[in-house]
Amino acid sequence: MVQGHVNLNTEKTEQWIQEYVDGWVEFFKKQTDTGKVADYIPKLEEADPNSLGITIIGKKGTEIRSGDVEHEFSIQSISKVLSFITACMDRGIAYVLQRVDVEPTGEAFNSIMHLEVKGHQRPFNPLVNSGAITTSSLLSGNTSDEKLEPLFQLMEKIIGRRPEIDIDVYVSERDTSMRNRAIGYYLLEEGYLESDLGVTLETYFKQCSINVTTDDLARIGLVLSNDGIHPETEEIIIPRNIVRIAKSLMLTCGMYDASGKFASYVGIPAKSGVSGGILAVVPPRVRENELPFLSGCGIGVFGPALDKQGNSVAGIKLLRHIANSWDLSLF
Amino acid sequence: MVQGHVNLNTEKTEQWIQEYVDGWVEFFKKQTDTGKVADYIPKLEEADPNSLGITIIGKKGTEIRSGDVEHEFSIQSISKVLSFITACMDRGIAYVLQRVDVEPTGEAFNSIMHLEVKGHQRPFNPLVNSGAITTSSLLSGNTSDEKLEPLFQLMEKIIGRRPEIDIDVYVSERDTSMRNRAIGYYLLEEGYLESDLGVTLETYFKQCSINVTTDDLARIGLVLSNDGIHPETEEIIIPRNIVRIAKSLMLTCGMYDASGKFASYVGIPAKSGVSGGILAVVPPRVRENELPFLSGCGIGVFGPALDKQGNSVAGIKLLRHIANSWDLSLF
Amino acid sequence: MVQGHVNLNTEKTEQWIQEYVDGWVEFFKKQTDTGKVADYIPKLEEADPNSLGITIIGKKGTEIRSGDVEHEFSIQSISKVLSFITACMDRGIAYVLQRVDVEPTGEAFNSIMHLEVKGHQRPFNPLVNSGAITTSSLLSGNTSDEKLEPLFQLMEKIIGRRPEIDIDVYVSERDTSMRNRAIGYYLLEEGYLESDLGVTLETYFKQCSINVTTDDLARIGLVLSNDGIHPETEEIIIPRNIVRIAKSLMLTCGMYDASGKFASYVGIPAKSGVSGGILAVVPPRVRENELPFLSGCGIGVFGPALDKQGNSVAGIKLLRHIANSWDLSLF
Amino acid sequence: MVQGHVNLNTEKTEQWIQEYVDGWVEFFKKQTDTGKVADYIPKLEEADPNSLGITIIGKKGTEIRSGDVEHEFSIQSISKVLSFITACMDRGIAYVLQRVDVEPTGEAFNSIMHLEVKGHQRPFNPLVNSGAITTSSLLSGNTSDEKLEPLFQLMEKIIGRRPEIDIDVYVSERDTSMRNRAIGYYLLEEGYLESDLGVTLETYFKQCSINVTTDDLARIGLVLSNDGIHPETEEIIIPRNIVRIAKSLMLTCGMYDASGKFASYVGIPAKSGVSGGILAVVPPRVRENELPFLSGCGIGVFGPALDKQGNSVAGIKLLRHIANSWDLSLF
Repeated sequence: MVQGHVNLNTEKTEQWIQEYVDGWVEFFKKQTDTGKVADYIPKLEEADPNSLGITIIGKKGTEIRSGDVEHEFSIQSISKVLSFITACMDRGIAYVLQRVDVEPTGEAFNSIMHLEVKGHQRPFNPLVNSGAITTSSLLSGNTSDEKLEPLFQLMEKIIGRRPEIDIDVYVSERDTSMRNRAIGYYLLEEGYLESDLGVTLETYFKQCSINVTTDDLARIGLVLSNDGIHPETEEIIIPRNIVRIAKSLMLTCGMYDASGKFASYVGIPAKSGVSGGILAVVPPRVRENELPFLSGCGIGVFGPALDKQGNSVAGIKLLRHIANSWDLSLF
Repeated sequence: MVQGHVNLNTEKTEQWIQEYVDGWVEFFKKQTDTGKVADYIPKLEEADPNSLGITIIGKKGTEIRSGDVEHEFSIQSISKVLSFITACMDRGIAYVLQRVDVEPTGEAFNSIMHLEVKGHQRPFNPLVNSGAITTSSLLSGNTSDEKLEPLFQLMEKIIGRRPEIDIDVYVSERDTSMRNRAIGYYLLEEGYLESDLGVTLETYFKQCSINVTTDDLARIGLVLSNDGIHPETEEIIIPRNIVRIAKSLMLTCGMYDASGKFASYVGIPAKSGVSGGILAVVPPRVRENELPFLSGCGIGVFGPALDKQGNSVAGIKLLRHIANSWDLSLF
Repeated sequence: MVQGHVNLNTEKTEQWIQEYVDGWVEFFKKQTDTGKVADYIPKLEEADPNSLGITIIGKKGTEIRSGDVEHEFSIQSISKVLSFITACMDRGIAYVLQRVDVEPTGEAFNSIMHLEVKGHQRPFNPLVNSGAITTSSLLSGNTSDEKLEPLFQLMEKIIGRRPEIDIDVYVSERDTSMRNRAIGYYLLEEGYLESDLGVTLETYFKQCSINVTTDDLARIGLVLSNDGIHPETEEIIIPRNIVRIAKSLMLTCGMYDASGKFASYVGIPAKSGVSGGILAVVPPRVRENELPFLSGCGIGVFGPALDKQGNSVAGIKLLRHIANSWDLSLF
Repeated sequence: MVQGHVNLNTEKTEQWIQEYVDGWVEFFKKQTDTGKVADYIPKLEEADPNSLGITIIGKKGTEIRSGDVEHEFSIQSISKVLSFITACMDRGIAYVLQRVDVEPTGEAFNSIMHLEVKGHQRPFNPLVNSGAITTSSLLSGNTSDEKLEPLFQLMEKIIGRRPEIDIDVYVSERDTSMRNRAIGYYLLEEGYLESDLGVTLETYFKQCSINVTTDDLARIGLVLSNDGIHPETEEIIIPRNIVRIAKSLMLTCGMYDASGKFASYVGIPAKSGVSGGILAVVPPRVRENELPFLSGCGIGVFGPALDKQGNSVAGIKLLRHIANSWDLSLF
């Protein structure tokens, strides 16, 4: 719970932050007992529930890595943020938002009933499955590869390598996700899908199966923190108004049914996935103390033991502790 | 720790801002046609649909007033924020959040069905009616006056005078709000109410009937922006962790079924009421441009013509325009 | 056009039926373990869970009584049938059905959510609480006593004495039924109630608190079986088109969430109450076998141990056994 | 409106009934304006909205045909009754009812939300789509043809020829029914389907595409009226306990969201389909007047103009009129 008087430009300070983060990663690693690794497909089930890793990359170049940061894991629902961004870049914000709303919902992420209760209204937001599948359908292209090309290019610009799909994960997702097919056919009937359902679902399952590391997520978070501008090249990678909506969505809907609690207790835009990953964004803040990362940073977390809402048990605890120590909350 | 080189203390800058705001208030006043004044009680129905007023009070003391700022109007749902804050101050955050969650909901503000669908779960959040009534029941005291005393004292510290209840509004609310009674009895059966239902509803109707001005709302917003500290006396009026949850709730749930859109397009914590008031909070921001109010401000708006979600038509347009011009969004 | 060669008027046959029923009452009395006496008010909680009694009164005058037929118990939800009948006699079928539909619902008897999901539609039917409260509001009169007078007179004509309200039950119902008050206020807001809510609920609670015996229920059932005509005086007590709708409602909606199963496995119109009473109606049937009661009968059952749907555990078993033995099903 | 004293065995009586029915068919043919032919597939859209035909076949051999009885039309949802019957004959009632309940629901026939609200409970009944698809999955066989063979054989025994599938209808159903695929995948995920989803849906779409005439429906109705026994050969075609549940289901759930009203106003088991067909069953009744068809009959109706619930506008009016004239109601 210490803050105070850190000068991020000195090596000494970085060392201090590194030790601080290492200590808490060790501490929260031991608190994964209440969680459970996702087991609906084999690859996810293989994960070590006691893993915990975090990468923090600050706007000024500071990079902190701690714990199990070497793992590759499938991006899962975190891809919904990127898919929404590329759909907006491709079709325009107005076009996308006519087909998917940006309102939080109290229903489960895989709910169909809200579509039926509301009666012929677009899905609540792009971060629930109905909205994410609709968003995938909006991507240009006749095949899933064509549709995902802009997303791949965007990721490559940010993480410095072309991302790869985990074929085992993809095949498992494709062959087991009956609920997503149910949602897909419902959306098709309601007229929300703009591409063939088979291609749409293939796109959705592929985007969920992209492999990432905590470093990748931190780099993505940093670009979002930095209003869409690459922190080194200063290139505008994502238009700012799209970044803004993406961060707003992450804050209001990013952490499944615990989004409100995460906003209240942590207070930064974040999106989690069922593989245990969390992408978090710290916008620049004004604070009177000299705390780390006040000029903004991106954070990537991996901790595959999930709580009952589907979020990384240890990841949330770690983010909450750090955010409160360093006063990172937007609020 | 940079805030830009606008010096808000110079008369010239303030004059420029004043003229700018005046111009847009005039402009948006003429765009109230799509809205409709609330008509479920006589006092609200009397309001002039073309009214529009705004007060902005900055941390450094700048005060901007424009349009119809002289009106008194009932605070309505905006009181839910203050009631939540006083309940947390009175009973502790943990106690309150065991009885009311902080999750956004896709259901209407006056929904009962979410309680039935979810089955014996606490109300979604303190800003929907079921959560607000539960919150009012948590306030200490045997009478509505005893229960509201801390809220009155809090408001008095902020706005500089003891607030008054509009008796006509209170009597109308009390005598017409059948849905709130339905919600109240449902909550009573489910065991969420901690005080007599009659007293609870009386408390709720009274708190909704408190008269405020745009100045009052701006001053409240400024204290929330300033982490609960009075900007002049520097007294801690509200503990910071409570302020933080309150602002998070405003962002995720403050604008009825348009909360997600408001977060995406405006991006600041706000709470609206059916009388046409909006309480908005601008936390301090880091921006490289020289824009006004980057060190934080509170905003009060009054514009009684409402859109179909129940938010001030012109008020939202005005806030969106200003927030985008001055880059006030959190995201 | 008479069937069957059983002559129910002979002492020998009656004796045989009596022994048969006695045997099965004894048998099913021992099968009440899975049930539970209603415990939300003290008077109901006092009931002996092992009680089981039945009265069968045939059109031709045969009367069979077996088990605990001497008990008085509150009529509870069975009163909804009588209240619907008197409302139709008082206001006309068309008037009543414009305010309450006659459709079965998959929701619980005390659901509010169906009103919200369907959006400004009348309650599903007069046998769920929302429909029953609406029906009670339609009864003429300014007080609950005035409203219930026709119902009392109707019952008196059938059971031969003026029925009495169990004051303890009434007071308990009135003071504990928060859900019914919630429903009442919801209906009030939606505009379905035609009398003061307080008077309406008083009426509803009073009608539920009328004391009856299995004999009384059997006599009521017999009149319904006999198309509304008193079996002795041959007076038309209830118009036939109203009796028909009442029996249809009992078949489709009379046994709470087990109505469909009761229709499938027993196949006769029936209405149960939470005190353990069942009113059942056997219309005249054509059968080639020589079975008892083919010319129609009324049945009253009392067995206070309830299954999880709220129906008498032993009562349903007994009715199912008898109906199948004697081929009483409509189908 | 009075009839009476008809001796069905004389030619004169039959002639009188024929003329009576002819008159009312002509009359109700002109009352199809409020209806609309189903237009979701081309073949249904081709139907003449002013068509109306009826066949009544009595237990004693009387056959009445009137209006457009020569049309072949697809059986659509009426097949759900036959599929339920063959599934019960194949797997046993208990097995089937463990997977599909027999409770009416207030939700639409193509609802998914009830599955989500109730949470892992079997579909409400075999006459809503979720229950019918589940039922089709229970039929033995590895292909849709194998699965449907018993249904075809059952129909052949009753209607005297092997029924045929309308290929155009089948192809259209298969290619357009996205909602049914959504339901199918939902059921698959919940574990209710016992055969491959593709085969299950193929089976379901094929059974809906079987061509019938009003004569066929009347013959099926007669067998159901006659407790499953062929009226001429006296062979037991369907076990009686299955017939009983089928009739009970038709009465409580057979006419979509108007089932309760049909039970109240007409009072006989019936099942409608979107092609405008109605299968109705009149069990034998005891009445003091000598009215036609009191010993039971089957009725087939065709009238493709549908009301908003999906039932034949003119068909319902005609059935209601006849049932009331001849006192056919069960109640």
